[in-house]
Amino acid sequence: MQSVYVAGIGMTKFGKDPRSLAEICHDAAQTALTSSEIQEVEAIYIGVMNPEEFTGDSNIASHIADALGLTGIPAVRIETASSAGAAAVQAGFQAVASGYYRRVLVLGGEKMTHLSTSATTRVLAGVIDKEERQCGATMPALAAMITEKYREKFNLSQSRLETMLCAVAVKNHGNGAHNPMAQFQKPISRETYLASKYVATPLRLYDCSPITDGAAAVVLTSEKTDVRLAGVGQGTGPLSLRGREIFTSFPATRMAAARAYRMAETSPQGIEFAEVHDAFTPFEIITTEDLGFFAPGKGGDAVLEGVTAIDGRLPVNPSGGLKARGHPVGASGLAQIVEAVKRLRGESGSKRQFNRGLTQSTGGLASNNFVTILERTDASLPRTPGFPQPARQVAKSRPAKMPMSNEGVIETFTILYVTPDGFLPPLALALVREQNGRLILAQGEESKHLKIGREVYLKRTEDYYLFTLKGRFKMVQDSLKRNLWQRARALVRKPIPADGKL
Amino acid sequence: MQSVYVAGIGMTKFGKDPRSLAEICHDAAQTALTSSEIQEVEAIYIGVMNPEEFTGDSNIASHIADALGLTGIPAVRIETASSAGAAAVQAGFQAVASGYYRRVLVLGGEKMTHLSTSATTRVLAGVIDKEERQCGATMPALAAMITEKYREKFNLSQSRLETMLCAVAVKNHGNGAHNPMAQFQKPISRETYLASKYVATPLRLYDCSPITDGAAAVVLTSEKTDVRLAGVGQGTGPLSLRGREIFTSFPATRMAAARAYRMAETSPQGIEFAEVHDAFTPFEIITTEDLGFFAPGKGGDAVLEGVTAIDGRLPVNPSGGLKARGHPVGASGLAQIVEAVKRLRGESGSKRQFNRGLTQSTGGLASNNFVTILERTDASLPRTPGFPQPARQVAKSRPAKMPMSNEGVIETFTILYVTPDGFLPPLALALVREQNGRLILAQGEESKHLKIGREVYLKRTEDYYLFTLKGRFKMVQDSLKRNLWQRARALVRKPIPADGKL
Repeated sequence: MQSVYVAGIGMTKFGKDPRSLAEICHDAAQTALTSSEIQEVEAIYIGVMNPEEFTGDSNIASHIADALGLTGIPAVRIETASSAGAAAVQAGFQAVASGYYRRVLVLGGEKMTHLSTSATTRVLAGVIDKEERQCGATMPALAAMITEKYREKFNLSQSRLETMLCAVAVKNHGNGAHNPMAQFQKPISRETYLASKYVATPLRLYDCSPITDGAAAVVLTSEKTDVRLAGVGQGTGPLSLRGREIFTSFPATRMAAARAYRMAETSPQGIEFAEVHDAFTPFEIITTEDLGFFAPGKGGDAVLEGVTAIDGRLPVNPSGGLKARGHPVGASGLAQIVEAVKRLRGESGSKRQFNRGLTQSTGGLASNNFVTILERTDASLPRTPGFPQPARQVAKSRPAKMPMSNEGVIETFTILYVTPDGFLPPLALALVREQNGRLILAQGEESKHLKIGREVYLKRTEDYYLFTLKGRFKMVQDSLKRNLWQRARALVRKPIPADGKL
Repeated sequence: MQSVYVAGIGMTKFGKDPRSLAEICHDAAQTALTSSEIQEVEAIYIGVMNPEEFTGDSNIASHIADALGLTGIPAVRIETASSAGAAAVQAGFQAVASGYYRRVLVLGGEKMTHLSTSATTRVLAGVIDKEERQCGATMPALAAMITEKYREKFNLSQSRLETMLCAVAVKNHGNGAHNPMAQFQKPISRETYLASKYVATPLRLYDCSPITDGAAAVVLTSEKTDVRLAGVGQGTGPLSLRGREIFTSFPATRMAAARAYRMAETSPQGIEFAEVHDAFTPFEIITTEDLGFFAPGKGGDAVLEGVTAIDGRLPVNPSGGLKARGHPVGASGLAQIVEAVKRLRGESGSKRQFNRGLTQSTGGLASNNFVTILERTDASLPRTPGFPQPARQVAKSRPAKMPMSNEGVIETFTILYVTPDGFLPPLALALVREQNGRLILAQGEESKHLKIGREVYLKRTEDYYLFTLKGRFKMVQDSLKRNLWQRARALVRKPIPADGKL
């Protein structure tokens, strides 16, 4: 396979940008092309998540080719939800690696801030499963439910979890303060974090990445430059929350990482820094575990111990991450690569010499993830592969004709305070495992006393399921019912005596 | 570059399909996989145009991977408007040609018939330029204006043009009658064609492809099979109509063809049959000229002479084309490839042995086009390259600060009878070249007496331009105005005599 190198990089200052999507993309592309020795490209790969609904633009590839003054040049739009920028890099990589093209421009962009928060939330929620959306779920709601499950699985107290999430937010905002392209360039304190409101328990506003406009671009080439795309990998995961068996790890990241490490002939130990998809602070923790940097359940400790700090052993999101740099969805996966190239080139303000970095991008609720490994070509790097190939996790097909039980147990839950249109806060949502083993996302009739493991009743409405906690009185009733039932069954099972008398 | 072969093919019966997009895709994929010796693929490339607006599905790649039971496998969505299926083939081709994957599944699909015609027309119109859309333009409207320009350029009478377009429709519907997967399997007569209503003059209902649900799939592999992807090429063209200098040819097709012919080491003379994008009958004629099969202006004659008939020298759309097979936008580019493979394999009912075929797919208003050349691997084919590389046509940038003249000349026009919501039929639209050379799409205050070359007045409203024909009375007024103006200017230019008297 032909090696693929990075020739030029560019990005806009992320944040609220008054320009159109095409103008933002033009800006990033221009910077990438002028910073490159290559001014002429043979094709354009464009990662955009949803210009159809964000800005009313279909046929975006032709539109952007036109806007760049590159009409005629082949242009393709690539989309994998919020990892579209990384997907475009992979498509561009494959095109150059095949020898079909020698030089391509890869672009990622999104224009979001012109819409209201509720409209943006609605468009973003389009990436999650339809049934779960109908129940009132949003991206933060599902991320919160994953976080609650993580807390329970690794036996963390609520305050310990809060400390960990806060540490990620404080670290990334601190890092963003040094990044002139970041949306937020001010450090935040623990107090600021704690003063921020809950979006979906246990996630606060400062656990969630912002709404952002921006674009990023790279020029990829088969001619040797100072930075090489050493490994690229992709994996998918179940679209829905209820289609999963694993909640506290993202198999899509593990699949992508396995491929990227194998290709780059390296392992987690060979990585010197990483830019990962911290759309939600807990996702940074889970992702650093999935990438093999830390054992499951140990990602939070690593943040608290400073291992992932900008001057730590393994800086994670030294650019500020999605949290502080901002998250124009189609651009983020590519912006990570731009940041990584800057770091490898010593253009990011750090005095440390980095030779190998990794970027990880997440599409939707970790349903389409990418890992890219970048290396300086002048460094002599050890080749020590070693990362287990994960088993493919097939979305659980629901047992077809099993009756739905109307009783179940809470698998995880959240209280949603920023609700989609048509749903009033606070909105309790729980993933319930009904007695036949199926997972159901249900809306709570009450939002108090929720806990993983609590028993609930399920009721089907027209659009979704409702759950009610089994109360004390109800539990007594149930126990009586069970008792009567067992006695009745015992009676039935008892052989009928010859004289017919029980 | 690694050679890329077709291992399996599949498609659904096109038409109104009650199933969901995911189910339709599942069906096509299943057929492709079971008809292939390869059951396991390493990645999925999915061409879909606009599931966001057609069915409310974002994150479609993960969604479809899930639906196929292939969760975990990398899946990417590729989009280039109505050529998305062909774009997915090209992306899959590059991935296999690079050696990154050995076996990939390429899918194309769209679900459209559940929406009203006006809603579908609105979504489809999203692919055209925003300003032109605001003026009331739809895809058929712009295609009609291209057709009117073609008629004028090649000096065709209205009835000659009508005869040509009718011949394309009759031929393709006749071919569709033999295709069990086609939406329409009945031949149509000249009378049926002529009885059909105008959608946008000179295009009738039978000049336009229908609204369709459907999916198509191919398995691509690096292991040799009986059919090879010998050449693939892509080109883009200006998004808007008014950004063009050439109307009667699509540079995007010429670019794509040049690359595909060069790669396959062949020329138009080496092609034995073609499936081309006849979303509108005139596009088949223009495309066969752009592909180099016929000289400019001669494509219509070729249809009338039977050259492109199913038993002619060069069958074009022997499957029925988009006209009769149907046009689920994201699937069409891939369905063409499925049909071509069937023909090469002798599975299409024809007794003739075909060894090399070509498919051509059009994105939007010919703004993103693809050409693919397929060959039987057991045939010994002559390698005779020869197709001129076209000059790249950059979208005309409008002279920045030139004042807009309020007078101009009709470059081309149409009367639109099927109008988008908010516009009443008949709606006259004209592309007007104003006196400073800019092209403007404008709405007519009247819809009679329109003709290419007629002079008009232009007036700006809030959303678009209006034009009025310069009438007899107005022309007299103008001539008087011009006269007065010239006399005034002559006076000013005249040096003032020493005595101060004029």
